[in-house]
Amino acid sequence: MKNLIRPSVRELTAYTPGEQPKAAGLIKLNTNENPYPPSPAVSRALKEYPAESLRLYPDPVCTELRGRIAEIQGVAPEQVFAGNGSDEVLRLAIRAFTPPGGAVAAFDPTYSLYPVLAAAEEVGYLRVPLPEDFGWTAPPADLKAGLFLLANPNAPTGVFYPQEEIAALAGRFPGVVLVDEAYVDFAGGRDCLALAKERPNVLVCRTLSKSFSLAGLRIGYAVGSPELIGALFKLKDSYNVDRLAQAVALAALGDVSWMQDNARRLVATRERVAGELNRRGFRVTPSAANFLFIEPPAGDSAADLFARLRGRNILVRYFPAPRTKSFLRVSIGTDAQMDAFLAAL
Amino acid sequence: MKNLIRPSVRELTAYTPGEQPKAAGLIKLNTNENPYPPSPAVSRALKEYPAESLRLYPDPVCTELRGRIAEIQGVAPEQVFAGNGSDEVLRLAIRAFTPPGGAVAAFDPTYSLYPVLAAAEEVGYLRVPLPEDFGWTAPPADLKAGLFLLANPNAPTGVFYPQEEIAALAGRFPGVVLVDEAYVDFAGGRDCLALAKERPNVLVCRTLSKSFSLAGLRIGYAVGSPELIGALFKLKDSYNVDRLAQAVALAALGDVSWMQDNARRLVATRERVAGELNRRGFRVTPSAANFLFIEPPAGDSAADLFARLRGRNILVRYFPAPRTKSFLRVSIGTDAQMDAFLAAL
Repeated sequence: MKNLIRPSVRELTAYTPGEQPKAAGLIKLNTNENPYPPSPAVSRALKEYPAESLRLYPDPVCTELRGRIAEIQGVAPEQVFAGNGSDEVLRLAIRAFTPPGGAVAAFDPTYSLYPVLAAAEEVGYLRVPLPEDFGWTAPPADLKAGLFLLANPNAPTGVFYPQEEIAALAGRFPGVVLVDEAYVDFAGGRDCLALAKERPNVLVCRTLSKSFSLAGLRIGYAVGSPELIGALFKLKDSYNVDRLAQAVALAALGDVSWMQDNARRLVATRERVAGELNRRGFRVTPSAANFLFIEPPAGDSAADLFARLRGRNILVRYFPAPRTKSFLRVSIGTDAQMDAFLAAL
Repeated sequence: MKNLIRPSVRELTAYTPGEQPKAAGLIKLNTNENPYPPSPAVSRALKEYPAESLRLYPDPVCTELRGRIAEIQGVAPEQVFAGNGSDEVLRLAIRAFTPPGGAVAAFDPTYSLYPVLAAAEEVGYLRVPLPEDFGWTAPPADLKAGLFLLANPNAPTGVFYPQEEIAALAGRFPGVVLVDEAYVDFAGGRDCLALAKERPNVLVCRTLSKSFSLAGLRIGYAVGSPELIGALFKLKDSYNVDRLAQAVALAALGDVSWMQDNARRLVATRERVAGELNRRGFRVTPSAANFLFIEPPAGDSAADLFARLRGRNILVRYFPAPRTKSFLRVSIGTDAQMDAFLAAL
């Protein structure tokens, strides 16, 4: 019955998320999850949640949650979209900001979900190759794309790109620049929110998955001009964020200092591990995120090292694409987990 | 900056959900929410939920939840897709089963979200007019559509269509027939699951929103052949159902008899209210759902009655489309709420 299915869907390869193994005793450094738990306010919100209210539909436009985000980020609620994870925000942005038969553009390498989403939305995907050190490069002026997906800090490299370069790109790019700041809370206070506030063609996308330790909840949001935000609203499922997720996200956003304390701890661990790996002859890409992108010393291969670590119950991430196949991406865990990782190396 | 937005999105009119007013003392009979709370197992699941596990991503394919659904419905887990509400299931089905430039078909009237989803997915929408009594009519044999969206019981009428007619339709329709059974638990044990099990081009879609009293949670699912289900999986967001929703849905599905008891109570109330409205000269469409579709006696107008009820703090639903504008849709509440409704009439 294959002919019942849309041809582009038949050919689609779904995104491969990092493994979520059930084995006990595993040190899981493969999906950039936060090793610290969410704020105690989250636990309280769950325990106190009036379960009987689940019989009612959620607020379809997340009024309270968007109000809180708007307050934190210093924008109007009309400038905030809340989604079922930033996955939803990214999917809707591709749909809203590329014409039929159009394309999105992104650096290579970057978040491996982007080309999957572009294929699902049946638009082209233009790769702008990054230099050997994965640092900034100005995309060509004649890029024919409706949307530039710019992860900053970039994944899987962790490199942070200067706001001035992104501002210059937004100034000359004819479409929308979406700055995906999933990891920005580990970047030492730098971000592109000012750009999203000033420029009608810039959206900033955030998530509570990493820094707020809520990957299990699926809350992402976008900040930008009311016109761009309005387009996302038109396309979203009617009730895209459930009641519990709205309530728990509000609780987490009421305790920003908990997130910041965890981010600080994590950054300290990251810098310590980066220094140690440097000393051991690894090439360590400068990271502003909650992971390190590392190349083993000459004579060792990333794929082999991945397998050897796996054999010692340490799970990291290996991306076999041309630009990433000599590297491993290692999420930053607790100090104890990272010591075990260093010992296993 | 309107030129940043895809033309079809600029022209899109988002679905209008029923109002969710905050006013106290309102009797809310407008969005088909269940008047009874979800199972006590839901409340327990929330209270006992280990909040620290929210730092980890959810199971991207809802293994445990789909296993439970498969067990209840007597199918293999590969025949079950779980989504962020049946909204997501419907959206993905339109995408997966219509070719670019193709169309979906549906009866008129039916669930008013269908044409909104078709427009968002940039496919056509073919309306098959129902007869005056909203009963079954065989869609034309030459219907050029990849997908037939068939709400059964239908919305907003509540009419249940015979399985034999749907089987015959599936036999001659060249595309996929999606039977949207959002309200089927109020239909006295009749459903189209056997069809979804037997026929490779039939999907049945269910939701926990109505009968399980979990509209606030967003859990929908589809049952069908592994080929159709696999296409939905390819298109979904990577982590479409969050950890809490998976856990709470599992708890609710562990207590099916709670749902069935509530459904029985609600059906008894529905029949009592239908009888009373008949006696008062209303035309009452025979309903197999948790709502009634009623036409006021000659001399009164549905729009006026809607406004008068609103003035008495009773909120029902009015659809101003040509086929529905002389009717009101009234969700079935508790006996006390329905008595207040009858008194206000």
